[in-house]
Amino acid sequence: MARIVMKFGGTSVADLDRIRNVAARVKREVELGNEVAVVVSAMSGVTNTLVKYCQDLSPLHDQREYDAVVATGENVTAGLTAIALQTIGVEARSFAGWQIPLVTDDAHGKARIDSIDGAVLIAHMQAGRVPVVAGFQGIGPDNRVTTLGRGGSDTSAVALAAALKADRCDIYTDVDGVYTTDPRIVPRARKLAKIAYEEMLELASVGAKVLQTRSVELAMKERVRVQVLSSFGDETGASLPGTMVVDEEEIMEKALVAGIAYSRDEAKITVRRVPDRPGIAAAIFGPLSDANVNVDMIVQNVSADSTTDLTFTIGRTDLPRAQAVLAAHRGEIGYSELLCDPEVAKISVVGVGMRSHAGVARTMFSALAAKGINIQVISTSEIKVSVLIGAEYTELAVRALHTAYGLDAVS
Amino acid sequence: MARIVMKFGGTSVADLDRIRNVAARVKREVELGNEVAVVVSAMSGVTNTLVKYCQDLSPLHDQREYDAVVATGENVTAGLTAIALQTIGVEARSFAGWQIPLVTDDAHGKARIDSIDGAVLIAHMQAGRVPVVAGFQGIGPDNRVTTLGRGGSDTSAVALAAALKADRCDIYTDVDGVYTTDPRIVPRARKLAKIAYEEMLELASVGAKVLQTRSVELAMKERVRVQVLSSFGDETGASLPGTMVVDEEEIMEKALVAGIAYSRDEAKITVRRVPDRPGIAAAIFGPLSDANVNVDMIVQNVSADSTTDLTFTIGRTDLPRAQAVLAAHRGEIGYSELLCDPEVAKISVVGVGMRSHAGVARTMFSALAAKGINIQVISTSEIKVSVLIGAEYTELAVRALHTAYGLDAVS
Repeated sequence: MARIVMKFGGTSVADLDRIRNVAARVKREVELGNEVAVVVSAMSGVTNTLVKYCQDLSPLHDQREYDAVVATGENVTAGLTAIALQTIGVEARSFAGWQIPLVTDDAHGKARIDSIDGAVLIAHMQAGRVPVVAGFQGIGPDNRVTTLGRGGSDTSAVALAAALKADRCDIYTDVDGVYTTDPRIVPRARKLAKIAYEEMLELASVGAKVLQTRSVELAMKERVRVQVLSSFGDETGASLPGTMVVDEEEIMEKALVAGIAYSRDEAKITVRRVPDRPGIAAAIFGPLSDANVNVDMIVQNVSADSTTDLTFTIGRTDLPRAQAVLAAHRGEIGYSELLCDPEVAKISVVGVGMRSHAGVARTMFSALAAKGINIQVISTSEIKVSVLIGAEYTELAVRALHTAYGLDAVS
Repeated sequence: MARIVMKFGGTSVADLDRIRNVAARVKREVELGNEVAVVVSAMSGVTNTLVKYCQDLSPLHDQREYDAVVATGENVTAGLTAIALQTIGVEARSFAGWQIPLVTDDAHGKARIDSIDGAVLIAHMQAGRVPVVAGFQGIGPDNRVTTLGRGGSDTSAVALAAALKADRCDIYTDVDGVYTTDPRIVPRARKLAKIAYEEMLELASVGAKVLQTRSVELAMKERVRVQVLSSFGDETGASLPGTMVVDEEEIMEKALVAGIAYSRDEAKITVRRVPDRPGIAAAIFGPLSDANVNVDMIVQNVSADSTTDLTFTIGRTDLPRAQAVLAAHRGEIGYSELLCDPEVAKISVVGVGMRSHAGVARTMFSALAAKGINIQVISTSEIKVSVLIGAEYTELAVRALHTAYGLDAVS
């Protein structure tokens, strides 16, 4: 017997038929003798509608009222899922965040979980009932409803799994696992049976939108075994095995590279001919940080005369704001020119195996060079190498690297 | 300065423009120096959608989960209305039933209010903030969300007005007051400036669907002054005076008849040739009561031989059930025949003035006879005379009575 948290995203509960399908899937786990708690998102589209109501009334709406409005989508699904379970003979009861309680801080719209009292839910599970928890929401210190930010139901599920000391947290979604890269670009991409938290984190943050980054951080911190799998299953309705996100030690055969990720949401800015003196980086990045512009990769060229060129990347949607900030501070910075390029892509190779193997970066550079792809910026971490290239080379680069690291499935 | 509860129904908050209109109307009351609390229903159509979800999943769904699902519609409107108020400079905050708390019993789906703690809401009002309360909902003894039954937001508003010791409870709806009869049938029907609780109660229960019956009972019990008025107002947006529902003593000039109501939701059953012996009424109405069939008007004809005919009315939707029950008990009752007629209408004249005036019923019978309308059943109360007639005579009867009691507006 195991204790399992099962989380179903918006597409998995999009209509009553899919909610019935979710109930059947939960029943199967219960009949295997497991204790099960369920976490659900809002029916797909509902949250967007509610968000749009708030924005249409006022772009500067009160985040506390926004939370009161948008959290209702999950309450609806939790109640309906409980009814669907009862209808097929599984005892169930819905829980809003405040009923558990799942306590958060007061950062409305993007609250962080402070604590979860698992006692009531555990009592229900031990009595043979399935608690169905509304994801994405909690209760703040002033008795008001909070939400955890978009995709927050993943975080709800992982936090709940930690609080309930669950053996596994199954995240049901519309893909059937984590792949070595995007199968739409590389048809021979392989589904990974296991992936390390650190790898998942790097893949999540560079654009593999399977799990919310915060949920992976939390899983890693709390050592929650997370499984990503499809809510649609095979023709018999049984779940196909997905991808387990686990501790690095659990992965016996560590591949050098677990996967190739890409992101087209970047833009590149080059600040030309700034004075090459101490404090210049602070003069540039201080004002950007004040304006909430996150800077990612940074390179500084060696200077020939007493000036230098500084290149960095930011989120593409931040580009107009970054340009305005840098123009406003041109006097202090003293640059000659600002070059902006939104037509870039970041390609990353990720793998915990890099820790013990040299030559990963060299393989990357050679493979890209062989295809005539120019590398504009490079950044590395312990388990990741990222490069910035022209956006039009994205697919070419991903395919070349997938082959170069031996990730192609044997057909 | 007065303290006012303003309640807005589903059509008054049907979309964002109407919610902005509601906010403007609330702002006007606040700017007059009043303390205001607002109660809102769900956007029209939303509750029906949520109810249908529950019914489609299971006709025998758990009422506790039904409540968790359908109560969300009001939470959305409360949050959106608070945002709309803030946008035009009125401080506001939404409240769910559990946040007040508005405590009910555990009769999920049709809960009754046990108590309302007005302290938090009063503190907000005294600090210049407008509490926006989600109507129709409360919290039950086991920390679960309850709903008060369809139209329950009227009851929420009246109960809140009592708890807050409000000077007035304004019910904004899609009609601009209570009329002497349905203006669609009698164009010369007049809007009443005042109506007594008892009259409103009789009119509400015989088909004038302006206020939920329970809310009128509660207003009468707690002596809450209720005003019914239109949320659409005149072209300047100002509210037109509606109808005040008040204590009988407040009405100086008591009209003999305040209004004429009609209901087409009735069906008539005649049980032919039952033995005329003690206990026969119990033999008929006991089983009907057990089957939750409400019986309204009853007449028993004088018997010629040792048998009698018994005629009564029930809600039209209960007809198939009533027929089945009577057929199943035919042996005990011993009737010869069952005559069922769904093509009937109940016409009622209502007025507290009847208490001190004779001749009201005679005027009714004469007016109907003059039009050749046959009366099938009669029932009377202290302030009401009702008759059952053929449904096809409904409009003719209502117009004739409206004229006979001098209710027609002078054009």
